[in-house]
Amino acid sequence: MQRVLLLGAGRSAASLIHYLVKHASEHNWHISIGDYNPEVAKELVEESSQVRIFKFDVNSEEQRVDEVRAVDVVISLLPARFHIYVAEACLKMKKPMFTASYIADDMQALEGKIREAGLFFLMECGLDPGIDHMTAMQSIHSIQARGGQLFSFKSYAGGLLAPQSEDNPWRYKFTWNPRNVVLAGQGTAQFIRNGRYKYIPYHDLFTRLEPIQIPGYGDFEAYPNRDSLRYRKVYNLADIPTMLRGTMRRPGFSAAWHLLVKLGLTEDGYTLEGSEEMTYREFVNSFLAYDVQRTVEEKLCSYLGVTQEEEAFQKLVWIGLFENEPIGLPNATPAQVLQKRLEERWRFGQEDRDMIVMHHQFGYLLDGKPHCMEASLATVGQDPVHTGMSNTVGWPLAIAVKNYLLGKIQLTGLHRPVLPEIYEPIIKELVELGIELTEEEKPWVEPLPPGL
Amino acid sequence: MQRVLLLGAGRSAASLIHYLVKHASEHNWHISIGDYNPEVAKELVEESSQVRIFKFDVNSEEQRVDEVRAVDVVISLLPARFHIYVAEACLKMKKPMFTASYIADDMQALEGKIREAGLFFLMECGLDPGIDHMTAMQSIHSIQARGGQLFSFKSYAGGLLAPQSEDNPWRYKFTWNPRNVVLAGQGTAQFIRNGRYKYIPYHDLFTRLEPIQIPGYGDFEAYPNRDSLRYRKVYNLADIPTMLRGTMRRPGFSAAWHLLVKLGLTEDGYTLEGSEEMTYREFVNSFLAYDVQRTVEEKLCSYLGVTQEEEAFQKLVWIGLFENEPIGLPNATPAQVLQKRLEERWRFGQEDRDMIVMHHQFGYLLDGKPHCMEASLATVGQDPVHTGMSNTVGWPLAIAVKNYLLGKIQLTGLHRPVLPEIYEPIIKELVELGIELTEEEKPWVEPLPPGL
Repeated sequence: MQRVLLLGAGRSAASLIHYLVKHASEHNWHISIGDYNPEVAKELVEESSQVRIFKFDVNSEEQRVDEVRAVDVVISLLPARFHIYVAEACLKMKKPMFTASYIADDMQALEGKIREAGLFFLMECGLDPGIDHMTAMQSIHSIQARGGQLFSFKSYAGGLLAPQSEDNPWRYKFTWNPRNVVLAGQGTAQFIRNGRYKYIPYHDLFTRLEPIQIPGYGDFEAYPNRDSLRYRKVYNLADIPTMLRGTMRRPGFSAAWHLLVKLGLTEDGYTLEGSEEMTYREFVNSFLAYDVQRTVEEKLCSYLGVTQEEEAFQKLVWIGLFENEPIGLPNATPAQVLQKRLEERWRFGQEDRDMIVMHHQFGYLLDGKPHCMEASLATVGQDPVHTGMSNTVGWPLAIAVKNYLLGKIQLTGLHRPVLPEIYEPIIKELVELGIELTEEEKPWVEPLPPGL
Repeated sequence: MQRVLLLGAGRSAASLIHYLVKHASEHNWHISIGDYNPEVAKELVEESSQVRIFKFDVNSEEQRVDEVRAVDVVISLLPARFHIYVAEACLKMKKPMFTASYIADDMQALEGKIREAGLFFLMECGLDPGIDHMTAMQSIHSIQARGGQLFSFKSYAGGLLAPQSEDNPWRYKFTWNPRNVVLAGQGTAQFIRNGRYKYIPYHDLFTRLEPIQIPGYGDFEAYPNRDSLRYRKVYNLADIPTMLRGTMRRPGFSAAWHLLVKLGLTEDGYTLEGSEEMTYREFVNSFLAYDVQRTVEEKLCSYLGVTQEEEAFQKLVWIGLFENEPIGLPNATPAQVLQKRLEERWRFGQEDRDMIVMHHQFGYLLDGKPHCMEASLATVGQDPVHTGMSNTVGWPLAIAVKNYLLGKIQLTGLHRPVLPEIYEPIIKELVELGIELTEEEKPWVEPLPPGL
């Protein structure tokens, strides 16, 4: 019997847990699921001879070490800041570890120790990061194997709504962590295009959009993600002239979101005095100049350069920003106030289905000519538990764990799923589960980098 | 003999040192001046039986304690982050301490210990903070003594150029720490106007200006400073409906600076890959969208909504932002690149004179009627060493130290100069030194707060 420990059984854990449980008998696995709130896990799966659910407190070093000691492999779906504690227990007890989260600096610092201990740690093996890495590397390796020379790679992803649930003007609801949605993009977007570095400060990020089509799913728009430059190293494309990663939304979302950013409503660095008694209308007014002659709507439109008829303005009306309704949140930051209002309006209902979209564009030179290959994915959630997000985060991770337990991965060290021996069997099984990118060759129509 | 220890002898220390030396014989003082670079202090003053200059390393706890032990009073003009180490030595050795810097959180946390030790610590006793506090409190106390009820207080200050040195399109040069000028205003401006909280994010700060006149010195503009709200407590005006503090510039400065902010050139949170080989033109281009059809100037103008004929744009041309000249600064942040370019163009020469401006506006109700009182200061530096900045920072601090040594201050605890027994004799002597605000009663013309 092989023993699996899963730490963290939040919203995105359902598909992972069900995959593991489904394959437990076949492979003779025992699965221990620890969460600070074990009732949540019990709603997802019943305890049995193969499944144990227990209360887990990540702050207890003793419990961390005891639980890790007893198993063959450890999966962490805890909030990302806790991975480092799990990693330390895994190092101490010589166990492999799997997550769907970015490799943070503290984890990167353990790289040498992980390698010296002869352990296999796999991070960034969910959706984004995860499926993006795997499908990108598969295409990159395939282009290179044919003798192609990559000069451009752009990659976009988004957690959105299935078309049938796009029943509000934003065509958006919270399908994952609302706080992350409100704070998305803060910092400076950094990428490179045809050899020229490009930087976009947050306050203009949502005006610098690229249009994207996904066959069968229509139009999208994308804004650049924070640091695209570091992916040149991750994908072993150090000298590629164009590298950009972005986040996808439905057209029009960003123009309205930009108004919120420009007003300052997404700021999270200070608290608003008296926010508890303030109304949403007063909240908006506090970001506009004092002028008793004009309404809040008039001031906002002239300040932001929009009209009250415009769709972007109407989206703000729809979320209720101008209503004289108390916020009821003490000592709140602007971002917390905005999040509260949005949680009331962007509620993901029982009837709603989410949709994960991903789009890669590769530019490469083959036989002296530029080529374009696009690869697109759109996958809709099955139900409110097995969402597109839960499937695409949980399945790659579960498959990686399975392959490891079956002895199919003979690597040591700290890894992302960028090596064929890791990503090939995962992509193959994801295709069987219905998660597949559609490839399309197109003419290359954009300017070429200098020298090509 | 009374012994004074001055730690830090940088640019703004000249007037303080000369004041102390000038009065040393009269009061039988000995002055020890410690700096990491003692040569700088030796250029300002000669060593003598009354003056000792020594190399001081703030990182040496032993030296801190030894030097503090030997004196009666300690003045710190070190960079603000080091005050706390000096304060700890003063607490240990039971010595009073004086600075011209803001009371930081770590210093505030010592308040109880300072009081228990029966010591007098005076901070914020320079120009801004310093003269602003003193002159504001004098006017506030005077208005209240006449039965006036304050409903509005706005206060502005700036370190600018004397009119005869305003010989560039910005009417500005670096008269103090360039880095602080480049980063000025970052964060969110917070104030209150007629009972309504107002917040302005940094990315629009330089568009939200108030015009100001100083009789005899012409027109200025001001943008709000970071946190004006906390001054309600400092000035004991907890319920005042309007409280705003701002920074003064010559008209047109902010419109051009806003272009730099909007582009992202003042950001300091990340470094630019390859900044050493980049030219200033490429630097600017990296904040503009990729478009090989248009020049950098054309792209900037259309992105920022200005024309090439406008003064704001011409100010950017004047500082050389579009020149194909290498930056030559490795791993620089955008703010560091901008600072380097500005230091080449905004150099304060030997013939230049600086000018300190300050402007208070008080709104108050007296006999049922609204009144307005404005108080203005403009003071020009004597020479490149005894600048307006050095005089207005150093003299108040020196006078405070003198009054303390003469036994005229019988307070204990951590203080700002907001009590009459501290500020009255300082203001009196500043007037003798030519630093005096001119008061003017005017009709109140702005909207009154609700209920008045």
